[in-house]
Amino acid sequence: MSVLDILKEAAFEVLNRTKLIAGTEEASTKFGKGAGGDISTGIDLVAEQAVLDTLQRHDFKPTILGEECGIIHGDTGYLIMDAIDGTTNAIRGIPFYCCSLAFASEFKLSAVTDAVIMDLGNGDLYTSSKDNGAFMNSRRIEIGRWSGSEMELQNMVLGMNISGVSHEILNNLSSVLSMFKHARHFGANALELCYLARGLIDVYLDVRNKIRITDMAAAYLVVKEAGCKIYSMNGEVLDSDLIPNHTLSFIAVRNEAIYKKITSEVSVFK
Amino acid sequence: MSVLDILKEAAFEVLNRTKLIAGTEEASTKFGKGAGGDISTGIDLVAEQAVLDTLQRHDFKPTILGEECGIIHGDTGYLIMDAIDGTTNAIRGIPFYCCSLAFASEFKLSAVTDAVIMDLGNGDLYTSSKDNGAFMNSRRIEIGRWSGSEMELQNMVLGMNISGVSHEILNNLSSVLSMFKHARHFGANALELCYLARGLIDVYLDVRNKIRITDMAAAYLVVKEAGCKIYSMNGEVLDSDLIPNHTLSFIAVRNEAIYKKITSEVSVFK
Repeated sequence: MSVLDILKEAAFEVLNRTKLIAGTEEASTKFGKGAGGDISTGIDLVAEQAVLDTLQRHDFKPTILGEECGIIHGDTGYLIMDAIDGTTNAIRGIPFYCCSLAFASEFKLSAVTDAVIMDLGNGDLYTSSKDNGAFMNSRRIEIGRWSGSEMELQNMVLGMNISGVSHEILNNLSSVLSMFKHARHFGANALELCYLARGLIDVYLDVRNKIRITDMAAAYLVVKEAGCKIYSMNGEVLDSDLIPNHTLSFIAVRNEAIYKKITSEVSVFK
Repeated sequence: MSVLDILKEAAFEVLNRTKLIAGTEEASTKFGKGAGGDISTGIDLVAEQAVLDTLQRHDFKPTILGEECGIIHGDTGYLIMDAIDGTTNAIRGIPFYCCSLAFASEFKLSAVTDAVIMDLGNGDLYTSSKDNGAFMNSRRIEIGRWSGSEMELQNMVLGMNISGVSHEILNNLSSVLSMFKHARHFGANALELCYLARGLIDVYLDVRNKIRITDMAAAYLVVKEAGCKIYSMNGEVLDSDLIPNHTLSFIAVRNEAIYKKITSEVSVFK
């Protein structure tokens, strides 16, 4: 069984075990802070256990880097797990949250070789293996028909994480917002990046420096394999060591031309 | 057949006729500006026709106030129609858009007596008749188990429309954003207000003065009948004449206490 197949099985196990919990009191029960610093809730722990059980069933023992469990040392590569990305949505019953699982051969974001993101609201499954493309429910996804050349920036859809954003950053983002007529924030980073990979939105950015590796690793590969671009704040292709508590800012775009249009005018990227 | 039943039938007709169009080229074909000033697209026109056909089938002839068609004079009350709210989402294939239909006995928002909002992404149906409560899929919805007293503002979920927001307004909203850890914008006003009515989010505000009566009328009744509050910028209960091009700002909240907490600290509401 391939690594990707194990990740897929784990994601289905998470879907199965969390389906009837989302939006209930069990989902929101608090269990103190997880390794990532956020409060672990019932649905986070149920989901993480579903992944761990699946790995054990297959006697697969990577070093695990988890949102709740922190680091569990193993012997073959790294599994980067956010078993529930979008916990607040899951707790409230907002049907936009996902399970994000990535496997990396080395201790680098750019060394992620396999990625699975399961939309837990509707069961859509996003998968990717390095150099083999990105898929949604086994159909290849690419940047698609929205080729960009014919569409003006103002008619594109901008996704941006505005939760808990500081006054100063918001002030900078104001220039970005004014370039687009349509802005969105659905509340689950990994799934929003899948929307980008499918071409449902054109830009997704988070410049709060709060996103962790566990929130990014799987989507990072899906986005790149779908042909999109993802940059750090200094304009280089995003990369990072796989340190669970390390936080990032990034801008992901459908293509380089969109990135250039935005960053040429906005001070936050200079 | 009651007015509410006719509106429900119209909404199901819209669901039926638009289901296979969303996200396709047919959805996004442009047909010039509608009465509301936005570009009418294929999916808008298909949806509006579905409503008009349903009314005709029942020989029901209210004066129609429509996002695309403008005013069609009739002889009994007012039908306020946004056959597709969240057109951009519908065109892009983002599964968050709805059909919003309201009937008013007089030319006032507060005279809306019947309301139907159909979540066209998943078929959830929100209905309300004045003084008879609000319902989702025939089950009564109220402000629910999130009573508010035990939850701090910062842990609540803030919905806000940030599309095309000016620098000045964003600057004011910055103070609101800083009160909450979780902010969302899904991109279909009427459906976001239904999320508020269900207790999935705690606040929904749009202070851009761009929302039209056609975007608001049905959700206005659903929100009020679910026990939530909706205010204009001067702190009064929101009301307005049913003038299709008239634009509004508002803040809708789960309860008055939340409203007071927010507005006491934020200059945009003073």
